Amino acid sequence: MPVADLACHPLSFDMAEVFDEQQDAPGLTKGQRTLLKVKAAVARALEQTPYQMLRISDVADQAQISYGLFYHYYKDKERATVEVLLDFLEHLEKTYAQIHVSDDDYASLYQPNLFYLDVNRRNAGLIRACLTVSEEVESFREQYTLLIDRWHRRMAQSIRRNQKTTDELLPDAELVAYGVGGMIDQYCRQVYAQQNPFLSRLIENTHHFAETVSIMWYRAVYGRSPTKQQILNCRPDHKSGE
Amino acid sequence: MPVADLACHPLSFDMAEVFDEQQDAPGLTKGQRTLLKVKAAVARALEQTPYQMLRISDVADQAQISYGLFYHYYKDKERATVEVLLDFLEHLEKTYAQIHVSDDDYASLYQPNLFYLDVNRRNAGLIRACLTVSEEVESFREQYTLLIDRWHRRMAQSIRRNQKTTDELLPDAELVAYGVGGMIDQYCRQVYAQQNPFLSRLIENTHHFAETVSIMWYRAVYGRSPTKQQILNCRPDHKSGE
Repeated sequence: MPVADLACHPLSFDMAEVFDEQQDAPGLTKGQRTLLKVKAAVARALEQTPYQMLRISDVADQAQISYGLFYHYYKDKERATVEVLLDFLEHLEKTYAQIHVSDDDYASLYQPNLFYLDVNRRNAGLIRACLTVSEEVESFREQYTLLIDRWHRRMAQSIRRNQKTTDELLPDAELVAYGVGGMIDQYCRQVYAQQNPFLSRLIENTHHFAETVSIMWYRAVYGRSPTKQQILNCRPDHKSGE
Repeated sequence: MPVADLACHPLSFDMAEVFDEQQDAPGLTKGQRTLLKVKAAVARALEQTPYQMLRISDVADQAQISYGLFYHYYKDKERATVEVLLDFLEHLEKTYAQIHVSDDDYASLYQPNLFYLDVNRRNAGLIRACLTVSEEVESFREQYTLLIDRWHRRMAQSIRRNQKTTDELLPDAELVAYGVGGMIDQYCRQVYAQQNPFLSRLIENTHHFAETVSIMWYRAVYGRSPTKQQILNCRPDHKSGE
């Protein structure tokens, strides 16, 4: 599949591996380490099996633990999945906030988009589970909606900062944020979750994908194209003092 | 709800009403008229009840017909729904093709967008059912995917016609078509299907919605904004010889 590629955004992550690494943190009890092992197994199982079809045996097989141990930590697959998804979303938001903000307005879109697309690629099962579980579990839906709202509000702030305020026919910044956010999420759904073969064929790799999304986003928000130099500076083969 | 408004695009339609009107066509047999009555009832029932929860009694109540008559035409709710959805998509595509192509490049986006948003608003249940049924019924999914592919191909052609071919860093027209298509579909899903209250509050009416979508679309595709006069010319309060 051409969408996969190796070196992508340095902050991109695979949530199962994050749970693996957390087990090595100093000072954990054996119980805390086992819980992280169960969480890693849930995350891996959800990459292979949609939430609706997930069975505890899939998780137990992954973690090489007994059913009994799973039920020691979680009442059912819903509780386990909700907790793993909330950990994932928290990690996503925290990591997103660490992305270096560039002085260049195109790079300021490109770098977060590259990160976001790559996280979607590597955690497609968790992203899909977010949608399914948010339809079924109200407490999760509320937290998920709050996160999306925060994301749109930050986007809208950055759009407002960069809009020319003299233009009285400018579309509302909040609405624009929903538009570009919807665009990137719908791209991800079609490429990574539904694996639309026609669309996937158009995408060379995640860098190329991020470039297309970022150029459209830049144009939609600023009403002009980034310069050729801005685009080239963000390409992975670009060598310079950065 | 502010999103509703009266006079919208002249070609916009409510599919249940289309089935009602088709019953008046000359030369129909009684059986053909009753079938259209059943189809209208299925369309109305799907506006009130999601497909998963739809029962034949909902349809029978709507059409004021007996269970027996429903089963005279359809084996089950799946067959009935698939046929109604295919009729809807065919009518949508045929009507879309009748939209007058304007000489103005902004109006050429605005008019189809206004039509498409209003059809989404008035047939939100059918649109939602398209997604659900395409996940469950392979034969429907194939036809639905073909339709979406045709739509993207037409969009890409029009994007290619209007791109400046001198620009070597231009994103691929097919990918751009998926981007703007994803944007409008995701807007519709959030406003009409999920009825996101925050987003709905930002939208004054369908004309305002179409204007925002069209400005973003125009910018994303052409890399510049439409002129103030182009935007004003498309507003419903604009009076001139058109």
